Amino acid sequence: MPTTTTSTQEQFVKTILFSWEQSLGQASAFFSNLTDEEFLRPIAPGKNRIIYLLGHLAAVHDRMMPLLGTGERQYPHLDETFVTSPDNPATLMPSPDELRHAWTTVNNELTQHLRDWTPEEWLQRHTAVSAEDFAKEPHRNRLSVVLSRTRHVGYHMGQLILYKK
Amino acid sequence: MPTTTTSTQEQFVKTILFSWEQSLGQASAFFSNLTDEEFLRPIAPGKNRIIYLLGHLAAVHDRMMPLLGTGERQYPHLDETFVTSPDNPATLMPSPDELRHAWTTVNNELTQHLRDWTPEEWLQRHTAVSAEDFAKEPHRNRLSVVLSRTRHVGYHMGQLILYKK
Repeated sequence: MPTTTTSTQEQFVKTILFSWEQSLGQASAFFSNLTDEEFLRPIAPGKNRIIYLLGHLAAVHDRMMPLLGTGERQYPHLDETFVTSPDNPATLMPSPDELRHAWTTVNNELTQHLRDWTPEEWLQRHTAVSAEDFAKEPHRNRLSVVLSRTRHVGYHMGQLILYKK
Repeated sequence: MPTTTTSTQEQFVKTILFSWEQSLGQASAFFSNLTDEEFLRPIAPGKNRIIYLLGHLAAVHDRMMPLLGTGERQYPHLDETFVTSPDNPATLMPSPDELRHAWTTVNNELTQHLRDWTPEEWLQRHTAVSAEDFAKEPHRNRLSVVLSRTRHVGYHMGQLILYKK
């Protein structure tokens, strides 16, 4: 029964999309409720500041565009401060508003692509794996990237929530 | 083409299982490398101790058994200390070895069930949603529980990793 089968696939996609969007929504709600002063607080003594983790998440999600083969990056300049370097209070950083805007913009664009994919498109290889390796390890697909990044948001949310005394 | 379609569904399941097992593997590796003394350290000053988070994760995964409809709980006594109460150094706790054993046992059993499910079984409702609500919100299925708990492991891994100076 092709109809039922298609529906099963679509239900997988819907459930995965729900998890992705829920994860983004929780992080966005967290970031939207902070004052600029709070963004400069570390999550714990001697650990990353909140602003660093916001920039880090925005940069990592921006990197998903070419990784998923869905387009060019919009914010490659974030990498130097938020991906390849540790948090450094001496570094001049974009404002929380700019970073929130990047985070929201990138996620909206990514999510639009994800919503448009067919089940088969979810299972295509991501661009960091060669066609040869993908033939041996077909789980290294776009879905695995989305699941991994969803977990990554959760990983940092667990840290962010600690900033409150 | 039913063959291709079945393969698509199975590839979804395999990729989701890979993410679940990877997440468990990272946490288990973390817990296996700690001394008993280290288990008593808080992840940050005034925050949960590592032993509490191990017990919490073991209890939450034990609760997945009835939630997924895959069997009875094995460690319901963990709830009082690790789910319904905050971390309390005055509480007598099981040893790290006992908690590691519970964590491993529960995950092995859960994972065995997950491996046995057909794609359709992944999409059945979980037991915390009524049949009526499930008809309106079909994403409240077993898959959503597994994705949510996978994120939950990541959430606490982000915290656990902070304990190192």
